[in-house]
Amino acid sequence: MNIKPQIGTHINDLDTPCLIIDLDKLETNMNYVSDFYSRRSSKMRPHAKNHKTPAIAHMQINNGGTVGGVCASKVSEAEVMVNNGIKSVLITSEIVDSLKISRMIALAKRAEINVAVDSLQNAKSIDSIANKFNVEVGLIIEIETGMGRCGVQDADEALNLAESIKGLHNVSLNGLMSHQTISGEPDLETRHTEAKKVIEKVINIKNLLESRGFVLPIISTGETWSYDVAADIEGVTEIQGGSYLLMETDYAYMTEFQQVCKILGTVISKPTISSAIVNVGLKHISSLRGVPAIEGNNDIQVVDMAPSSSTVSIGDQVSLEIGDQLSFIPSQQDAMVSRWNQFICIRERTVENVWDIQARGCIS
Amino acid sequence: MNIKPQIGTHINDLDTPCLIIDLDKLETNMNYVSDFYSRRSSKMRPHAKNHKTPAIAHMQINNGGTVGGVCASKVSEAEVMVNNGIKSVLITSEIVDSLKISRMIALAKRAEINVAVDSLQNAKSIDSIANKFNVEVGLIIEIETGMGRCGVQDADEALNLAESIKGLHNVSLNGLMSHQTISGEPDLETRHTEAKKVIEKVINIKNLLESRGFVLPIISTGETWSYDVAADIEGVTEIQGGSYLLMETDYAYMTEFQQVCKILGTVISKPTISSAIVNVGLKHISSLRGVPAIEGNNDIQVVDMAPSSSTVSIGDQVSLEIGDQLSFIPSQQDAMVSRWNQFICIRERTVENVWDIQARGCIS
Repeated sequence: MNIKPQIGTHINDLDTPCLIIDLDKLETNMNYVSDFYSRRSSKMRPHAKNHKTPAIAHMQINNGGTVGGVCASKVSEAEVMVNNGIKSVLITSEIVDSLKISRMIALAKRAEINVAVDSLQNAKSIDSIANKFNVEVGLIIEIETGMGRCGVQDADEALNLAESIKGLHNVSLNGLMSHQTISGEPDLETRHTEAKKVIEKVINIKNLLESRGFVLPIISTGETWSYDVAADIEGVTEIQGGSYLLMETDYAYMTEFQQVCKILGTVISKPTISSAIVNVGLKHISSLRGVPAIEGNNDIQVVDMAPSSSTVSIGDQVSLEIGDQLSFIPSQQDAMVSRWNQFICIRERTVENVWDIQARGCIS
Repeated sequence: MNIKPQIGTHINDLDTPCLIIDLDKLETNMNYVSDFYSRRSSKMRPHAKNHKTPAIAHMQINNGGTVGGVCASKVSEAEVMVNNGIKSVLITSEIVDSLKISRMIALAKRAEINVAVDSLQNAKSIDSIANKFNVEVGLIIEIETGMGRCGVQDADEALNLAESIKGLHNVSLNGLMSHQTISGEPDLETRHTEAKKVIEKVINIKNLLESRGFVLPIISTGETWSYDVAADIEGVTEIQGGSYLLMETDYAYMTEFQQVCKILGTVISKPTISSAIVNVGLKHISSLRGVPAIEGNNDIQVVDMAPSSSTVSIGDQVSLEIGDQLSFIPSQQDAMVSRWNQFICIRERTVENVWDIQARGCIS
């Protein structure tokens, strides 16, 4: 059962655990990125995999500084976005199941769809199904830039694939993309150096392909951690930024962004004087990269997470009783949001909006 | 979008990733446990948090050897079960939010509801709301038996709490419960020794309370790993077994049970000769305790998991191409099932049933 709180409910009266958004902070992050890209020729293409919510995608697009569309990592996510009025989607994963290719191609009749590819076999499958539907789909060659996931490995592979795609009739090569990561808490200089290094590979391949006559309107690369570097690299047309909006402790080093998205929990047991059990566990919050932080109190720390609850340690100076609320800030938001049905949006400790996470569970 | 496959679809034609159940193996596990408990005075109370599916709960109850009801870890799960005809639910977590207590108490008008408590404050809140609803709720005192989570710590605390509950009018003390875990891959003797040791604490408290005049119809303890030991300990009336039904690699040492539940995925990229990228990631499968196994092939191993994909290494003797399917067996099923909308049930490589996971996302 999905219990929707009334607008105007005080935060203390919310049923927990629940997923909350701080609206003031959300607007701060959104405005920061809009302002940044409004002054540049490259634009943000916000990643919908992070928030999975058309209400938010439309806010991002309306706010400005974007390409007017979103990224999605799954066909099912793209379906939710297109069904809710988003006009352009770049699907950032390779789609190889024939049923899923059919679903993607049906979408291409109603919106601009581009999809990542890294093999001729996949390009041919898409072409063949697009032919049946009498529609054209844009292909974006994915370039592997160090994560060891999908993508062609080098310029030769990219060129071969691009040449072969020329021979297909219902797909067009529209550009290149790559995905990168950086570990730890890099300083500004490290972020800039590392981002330039990996994105250079994409730009070199772009230059090679263009010298062979290819026209590549989309060069999509850059992430939240490199949103500022990638934006100014000559040739990059759009940036895939997801985490900047809702944030997570993994990106806490990016101090221009606020921690927007939290899980509100309640102390359900107080087994000892220095510990408490909270009704927020691994089912509610990602622990992919370490335990969540507790908002506003460094003297309360998560020491263990079970599927449905956490054990927190309590400092000497802290009083914490059964029924008290705590806000957990995730280390990583991506896998977490997908588990929830709604964002409860808070301003001045009061519910102002409830947004359905319409692409919740769109994991295939 | 939730795409339901047609009954009769061949497994090779399924859209992936999807959550599948092997029906022959499911029936093997279910029958094994039914037979086991049919011959004993203690009974299984299957944990609905694992499968979250009324279709399965009813099969378990109809099959025999149970108490005729289920465990649930959340009020929202209990709501789904009661709304779908389950007549008795033991809620195994402390419920302290007043809104959630109200929801639980409303359920008690339609089904037998018992709930874990470990503090007088919580018992009083439940009593006060039950009074408004004019209904009686059963309380089960939780005993902490080594996991460091909820529960009263010792016999004195249990006795104090039991005495205080006597003074309340709309709750009745119906019994005791505890939850335990065991690490690694214990042999039969270790399982028996360890289970007896922790359950003894519960039995001692039961004996103490009974000597003070308390009547305790429910002594609920034991898990999948101790289903056989707990069943024969004098005084235990019911066992909370969840994992035995769908199974997971963490319990692979319990060779009487089959691995029933898997994620079917597809190879979407083949970046190098010895690796492949599969469309199953951390969003789809729990990695709480290590990476999943690949069914039927030890020469394919998961080496890295991203939110939406995994990298697998491929042995020299294995051929694996884009479009090939792999089945991932989870290390732990509990947090995983909650992310999915449906179980696709397979017999002889063909879809025989599709069951909605109705308590999916019931995490609060």
